[in-house]
Amino acid sequence: MNDLKKLGEFGFIRKIQKQMKARSPHVLTGIGDDCAILSPSGKNQFAVTTDALLEGVHFNLSWTSANALGEKAIAVNVSDISAMGGKPTAALISLGIPSNLPLKFLQQFYKGLDSACKQYNIELCGGDTVASKKHFFINIVLLGETNAQRTFYRSGAKAGDLIFVTGTLGDSALGLKLLKSRRKKWIAKERDLNFLKKRHLQPTARLKESRILTLSSLKITSMIDVSDGLLQDLQHICQSSNVGAIIDPQTIPQSKPFQRVSTANRLSTRELTFYGGEDYELLFTLNPQNAKSVKNLLQEIKASLIGEISPTPNSVFIKEKGGKLKPVKKLKGYQHF
Amino acid sequence: MNDLKKLGEFGFIRKIQKQMKARSPHVLTGIGDDCAILSPSGKNQFAVTTDALLEGVHFNLSWTSANALGEKAIAVNVSDISAMGGKPTAALISLGIPSNLPLKFLQQFYKGLDSACKQYNIELCGGDTVASKKHFFINIVLLGETNAQRTFYRSGAKAGDLIFVTGTLGDSALGLKLLKSRRKKWIAKERDLNFLKKRHLQPTARLKESRILTLSSLKITSMIDVSDGLLQDLQHICQSSNVGAIIDPQTIPQSKPFQRVSTANRLSTRELTFYGGEDYELLFTLNPQNAKSVKNLLQEIKASLIGEISPTPNSVFIKEKGGKLKPVKKLKGYQHF
Repeated sequence: MNDLKKLGEFGFIRKIQKQMKARSPHVLTGIGDDCAILSPSGKNQFAVTTDALLEGVHFNLSWTSANALGEKAIAVNVSDISAMGGKPTAALISLGIPSNLPLKFLQQFYKGLDSACKQYNIELCGGDTVASKKHFFINIVLLGETNAQRTFYRSGAKAGDLIFVTGTLGDSALGLKLLKSRRKKWIAKERDLNFLKKRHLQPTARLKESRILTLSSLKITSMIDVSDGLLQDLQHICQSSNVGAIIDPQTIPQSKPFQRVSTANRLSTRELTFYGGEDYELLFTLNPQNAKSVKNLLQEIKASLIGEISPTPNSVFIKEKGGKLKPVKKLKGYQHF
Repeated sequence: MNDLKKLGEFGFIRKIQKQMKARSPHVLTGIGDDCAILSPSGKNQFAVTTDALLEGVHFNLSWTSANALGEKAIAVNVSDISAMGGKPTAALISLGIPSNLPLKFLQQFYKGLDSACKQYNIELCGGDTVASKKHFFINIVLLGETNAQRTFYRSGAKAGDLIFVTGTLGDSALGLKLLKSRRKKWIAKERDLNFLKKRHLQPTARLKESRILTLSSLKITSMIDVSDGLLQDLQHICQSSNVGAIIDPQTIPQSKPFQRVSTANRLSTRELTFYGGEDYELLFTLNPQNAKSVKNLLQEIKASLIGEISPTPNSVFIKEKGGKLKPVKKLKGYQHF
């Protein structure tokens, strides 16, 4: 009989309940009743998002640690709340646990969850744990609040708006490439390889950057987080806003480790930065009158200007050297099925 | 290439979005952005619950229809919100879809979801669809509202309170027994067998009954829904309230089909009604001064008096014929792992 069987479902839940220390003032009743009860603060709206992570599809237990997995499960959902201009408050987690998964793994996983919850001020307020036939799976639901006047949708971009993205792109996709081909000899410094892998395994949600944008007076017209790949997520904005976009590939922000490893190993930086996905950076559009006066703010959140919204619906173009516009034909961001 | 692959993830989501017609005034932004945005009404609190359903663990595709599965996935969560005295508003659904699952099955499943959403006034406002390696899995999150003065927890039961349960118990457990042993010859009318199977496959959440209780002036001291089995859920109330309970087995409500089938086939009605689970009836405790004056109300919601709360913490007793009290030693309700 394994550890989990000994504990039983309710014993396991009690154990986990004690382990999770992060609290939110919004949670009136947490784990242990039929529902969690939350209180809205003032006139804020509720934001809610959910993400499912499957062993063998979204993560591989041979190269991710339980702790990192717990942190990432929270971070990817915080990224969605951040992309709306919201503040996360409470999470629920459903787990499908195969019988051979060690209890120690689960404890480490919850340690990662708890540490991410503390980092982003979230309380784990409920969930469901079930036995899974074969694969480990995780479903996180994250609740948060948004101010009605400062909630950012995918649908508000207008022709002439400037397109910004925070941080750097492609690190996570390159990190995943490294993880997948561990036996290959890469021409690279260990430190660079570790930076890129960590960007994939333990991404940071841009909550701080989102708070700065939301609390500013910037005229943000649309926002999304880059999870499916820059061009695919930009297309989501274009579709919802009924506009197009022109991107300057020279301006796509890249980290130093990314540049060094991709150059030394002759990898296509465009493939990785345009289609890679899982960057969890914020992609947003800004009214152009507004952008010039706020250089400091944009510097503070490390936002780069990468293009402009155009009036033609659903047309995304790459501005090649010499100014020629090349249409993006087929978006290759990650799709399930 | 199967139908799902042809559609792609986003094509599938668009298709489903069109199919889901049920709407809620609380949902300001539904499917199609990074988060759903909800508005709280007045000073109500939010209630949130989640349930994971796995193929091979919670359901068997050889005996449940896609439509019934969709209905049940919503109903079991509505049951949790009802058990707190809440009203459901919005749902999110995560699906793990194996590649061999026909698109038609998914459409029927969403038809069931939509019909249950309409029945309980819920809007599907978001979710996540991912490819699953082997088994189909469903995770539902249900949001609702509760009035702070009329939110019922597991923790308020006091010695002397009367214990009530709505509807009848054991039908679902017997229905599951029938489904599992389809080849066996049962001494029973077809109509009775169908009634019992339906109670397992398409349970009705007691939302209407919960609304009547919540809007009444009854002094309800605790409430839970019977999902793990009567005795196990009663133990949850006893643990949370630091009390005990005495149950009279003669008063456990049983349906006519349940009585006929269990008698004719010599099945233990006690095993089925005490430990069966998945009844989705409401189990609640009432201040005794209150109970006598509200017979009509209790009749309207088909509530039966089945016992009394006692002062000894965590002690559940069965009152046998002649008045002898027999302790419930080990609770055998459903536990994962």
